[in-house]
Amino acid sequence: MDTRTSPIRLRITQLREELSRQGVFALLVPSADPHLSEYLPERWQGRQWLSGFTGSMATLVVTVQGAALFADSRYWVQAEAELAGTGIDLVKIPTGNSSLHLDWLAQHVPRGATVAVDGQVLGLAAAKALRAALDAAGVPLRTDLDLLDAIWPDRPGLPTQPVYEHRAPQAPLPRGAKLATVRDGMARAGATHHFVSTVDDIAWITNLRGSDVTYNPVFLAHLLVDGRGATLFVADGKIDAALQATLAADGIAVAPYAEAPAALAALGAGDTLLVDPRRITFGLRERVGAAAAVVEAINPSTLAKSRKTAEEAAFVREAMAEDGAAMCEFYAWFEATLGQERITELTVDEQLSAARARRAGFVGLSFSTIAGFNANGAMPHYRATDDSHAVIEGDGLLLIDSGGQYLGGTTDITRVWPVGTVSAAMRRDYTLVLKGTMNLSRARFPRGTPSPMLDSLARAPLWAEGIEFGHGTGHGVGYFLNVHEGPQSISKAVVEPHMAMEPGMITSIEPGVYRPGQWGVRIENLVLNVPAATDGVFGEFLEFETLTLCPIDTRCIDRSLLRADEIDWLNRYHATVRERLAPRVSGAALAWLQARTQPI
Amino acid sequence: MDTRTSPIRLRITQLREELSRQGVFALLVPSADPHLSEYLPERWQGRQWLSGFTGSMATLVVTVQGAALFADSRYWVQAEAELAGTGIDLVKIPTGNSSLHLDWLAQHVPRGATVAVDGQVLGLAAAKALRAALDAAGVPLRTDLDLLDAIWPDRPGLPTQPVYEHRAPQAPLPRGAKLATVRDGMARAGATHHFVSTVDDIAWITNLRGSDVTYNPVFLAHLLVDGRGATLFVADGKIDAALQATLAADGIAVAPYAEAPAALAALGAGDTLLVDPRRITFGLRERVGAAAAVVEAINPSTLAKSRKTAEEAAFVREAMAEDGAAMCEFYAWFEATLGQERITELTVDEQLSAARARRAGFVGLSFSTIAGFNANGAMPHYRATDDSHAVIEGDGLLLIDSGGQYLGGTTDITRVWPVGTVSAAMRRDYTLVLKGTMNLSRARFPRGTPSPMLDSLARAPLWAEGIEFGHGTGHGVGYFLNVHEGPQSISKAVVEPHMAMEPGMITSIEPGVYRPGQWGVRIENLVLNVPAATDGVFGEFLEFETLTLCPIDTRCIDRSLLRADEIDWLNRYHATVRERLAPRVSGAALAWLQARTQPI
Repeated sequence: MDTRTSPIRLRITQLREELSRQGVFALLVPSADPHLSEYLPERWQGRQWLSGFTGSMATLVVTVQGAALFADSRYWVQAEAELAGTGIDLVKIPTGNSSLHLDWLAQHVPRGATVAVDGQVLGLAAAKALRAALDAAGVPLRTDLDLLDAIWPDRPGLPTQPVYEHRAPQAPLPRGAKLATVRDGMARAGATHHFVSTVDDIAWITNLRGSDVTYNPVFLAHLLVDGRGATLFVADGKIDAALQATLAADGIAVAPYAEAPAALAALGAGDTLLVDPRRITFGLRERVGAAAAVVEAINPSTLAKSRKTAEEAAFVREAMAEDGAAMCEFYAWFEATLGQERITELTVDEQLSAARARRAGFVGLSFSTIAGFNANGAMPHYRATDDSHAVIEGDGLLLIDSGGQYLGGTTDITRVWPVGTVSAAMRRDYTLVLKGTMNLSRARFPRGTPSPMLDSLARAPLWAEGIEFGHGTGHGVGYFLNVHEGPQSISKAVVEPHMAMEPGMITSIEPGVYRPGQWGVRIENLVLNVPAATDGVFGEFLEFETLTLCPIDTRCIDRSLLRADEIDWLNRYHATVRERLAPRVSGAALAWLQARTQPI
Repeated sequence: MDTRTSPIRLRITQLREELSRQGVFALLVPSADPHLSEYLPERWQGRQWLSGFTGSMATLVVTVQGAALFADSRYWVQAEAELAGTGIDLVKIPTGNSSLHLDWLAQHVPRGATVAVDGQVLGLAAAKALRAALDAAGVPLRTDLDLLDAIWPDRPGLPTQPVYEHRAPQAPLPRGAKLATVRDGMARAGATHHFVSTVDDIAWITNLRGSDVTYNPVFLAHLLVDGRGATLFVADGKIDAALQATLAADGIAVAPYAEAPAALAALGAGDTLLVDPRRITFGLRERVGAAAAVVEAINPSTLAKSRKTAEEAAFVREAMAEDGAAMCEFYAWFEATLGQERITELTVDEQLSAARARRAGFVGLSFSTIAGFNANGAMPHYRATDDSHAVIEGDGLLLIDSGGQYLGGTTDITRVWPVGTVSAAMRRDYTLVLKGTMNLSRARFPRGTPSPMLDSLARAPLWAEGIEFGHGTGHGVGYFLNVHEGPQSISKAVVEPHMAMEPGMITSIEPGVYRPGQWGVRIENLVLNVPAATDGVFGEFLEFETLTLCPIDTRCIDRSLLRADEIDWLNRYHATVRERLAPRVSGAALAWLQARTQPI
């Protein structure tokens, strides 16, 4: 028996005993918490604990007979490795088919047998889809059981880290103004109350930050807003007396985290509650007092915070310059040291994180650094570990996807660097990806264009050569908040309401090529939606201001694949990078910056 | 009082009296018939009869107090003119917001007041959305009234034109094979029966054609398919005895048109009926026997007929060459005659239609010719009339959008031709549109790509200059069937299931620029999805074979706006056009072809 997988088999066996005890045929374990966060506090990492799969997104189904993990193409290589020997089947989700597990349940669960899912971590919109699928298959659903609790003896508790203020000048809008924006949205929806569960929304509205979730400067809380005041439900001890007084002065009362359901239950006749079905759990929605009216709409704060103000954008440009300077220092060290000392993927992470930590305004990383050499770079969500990582030596491509949290913004950048000799095939892939990044970066489009419609502009240069990548082209980015924030998304996913491109939004552009077992290429910048200077005859147009400031390696380029206008864009970008970063670096880092921003 | 609009005011007044009699607050009149066709038999052109608006798509709402017509940007200029003096407000539908009338009803109809719509012409999917919107607003819905009948004394009856066979060789697949395909789809959905209301689906399945609807070679019928046979519900006298015998030999019985609802009502326990909620009316769905199970899925024939076979594609290429030869003859006449004789937009239609009528396999036009000179070309759905049309003289651009029905395919082509001196601004617009047409025509993309994702590739060159157009980039095209056939569509509309690009689909590519009061440019080709020769590492890829064969005027081009690769594509296209059409034309038409296909 494989000692690494035996704990998983044991846990699954214990869970099956629990299923039998409760008369349940199958348990659905989503990657979710009571706040529907992307990054989960340890207490809600039950899917990982139960399956052994460490990727951030997947859905596990355990039945009395079998078990299946549903993961998209980003995770297939990793999931196959981590699930080996566990008895859990990997079900590969084709691009865009996020409801595959619903079809699977309908096919694999006998009519009349019960499916369970913990309603406390199930989104309301997801619950509706699940119930519709199971109803059609004649399968009852139970949402009142937390079956993991019974078999997870050392399950972590709630995080206890303190909450702090995000202050001016980096937080230019006071929380009073943000609450007013939220109340405007409530009024438009005809609501007297609004309940917010999503931690990025709560952090934005309250100008508070925390560290309950790795990489995201957020804290676990719920927020109930009414016409005059608001109540923040947060664990005892996380907000000190002074901060409580500050919040009270802005009309925000603090209450125990566990009292949020009771506050919802207390709503009654005459109250109209606004909730976002994609951003509240089924469990909490069920607690709303029966006499209260409920209107469903997107959280007003989700739309508001996606549009950065001019003051915020100025701070983001500052953060980008600091981040770029850190990249220069790191790469200068890397190029000088490679071949002299042993460098591994872990060393890369350490050195790059240390370079960022020296920059003004730095708070922490915005996600786990991906440093993947050659075949490891072909796994878009690869993470080197103590047990498994590559030494940077010989020939090939080093892909580094990393980012920082600064008081004045959140960064996310991917670059690919040459090691030794780079083959013609690698240079071709690299250049085609660069063409994709540039083609979208240079686009103009009408204000209000649904963001997914832009996806093909990044893919077209790769498609022309028969190359496709299995992840989205871009994601929205928060302001000293989550590195993945909607509502906009540049991807092939179904176009949903509220994905219109609006001024002030920040989005990533990150096409890639992944050749399993060989190498991966991804070139990623963050861009800001800014008004484009057009004649206005056909309405307002937007274009992208590229915010990320860091050389894009030119030695990996096959220049014959670039058009003159593309070479011009790249040279102008490098001139900007040089001009903006030069004042912030010196010595070897400055020399490196000068060398790597030469025109081609 | 304006004599042209007074009949409309009278009809609206009579309708309001009928509304009062029935206790109804508002009547919704969609542009629809019992078969949910795009082109409506006269009997179901009630929206036009009642409002005076002659455009093909719009939704009318008449309340006891007011009236509003909802139309998208293609129709705004036309609707403003035609609604003047009628008392009906034009509500402009922004791109992509096809449910605006639902919001309007929810806002304008008092809680408790009744809305009516004829369930016999309301799609099932539309009925669900309407009911949901009205339920939320506390507004009851009645679907059992045909209020137009009472006030429309000379309402036309059912069309009586005969039905005929689409035979081999142009119909390569026998109806038996098509029925087998439909039954495969039924089996996959677990259905014992399948009801088809859409006339293009029925024409395709049965290899029958008719002329009940202008421009579309279809006939009004419903079809009920079971595991062994099928029943075609069609008006008496339309199918002669010999054809009835032929159909009987293939397992298709003929029954009276009016008996379709009774056949649905006769379904019972043990029967499972497959219906397509977008392709069956609410009224018919309501008639299905209560004991029968119903599964909703896209009509199997809708997917099957979108993928033309290799034999069909070969006939389409032949039809395109005939159509292109007709274009050469027309344009040669046009250029020789312009300035010599008086030519109007109506003359253009006559001469072009006559040229088509001389070609082998021609059956009729596939839609009403759009010939728009200068400002008239700025109305994408313009149609010249005896009362209102332009003389082609002076300087400017003549836009001609036209198409034919051939036994071996359906064509649809738009070209813009110079008249006198063409301004620099016109040439810029023309060249930018051409860049859009070429950019998409040259694209490759993975098989299965949702067709709307390709839309931005045609728009990008226009967007770069701050130009947008208000219609979709492309529509699917039938095979000697409707000129607009899904499921694929290249547009900004919401991405729905079943819009994946598959081999054999034929789609239009037709970006445009419209400057109201000045001129319009649109350049349209039909393209076929064919496998692209890639290395296969990233799966199957498709590319477009441009099917349309006709010179694209080069005198309107601003060559400085084209890249070398674009000029190369255009020259290669013209070489193909010359090579394919030269054997089919002679004399002046051949000389014209030679002149207009010279490389630039």
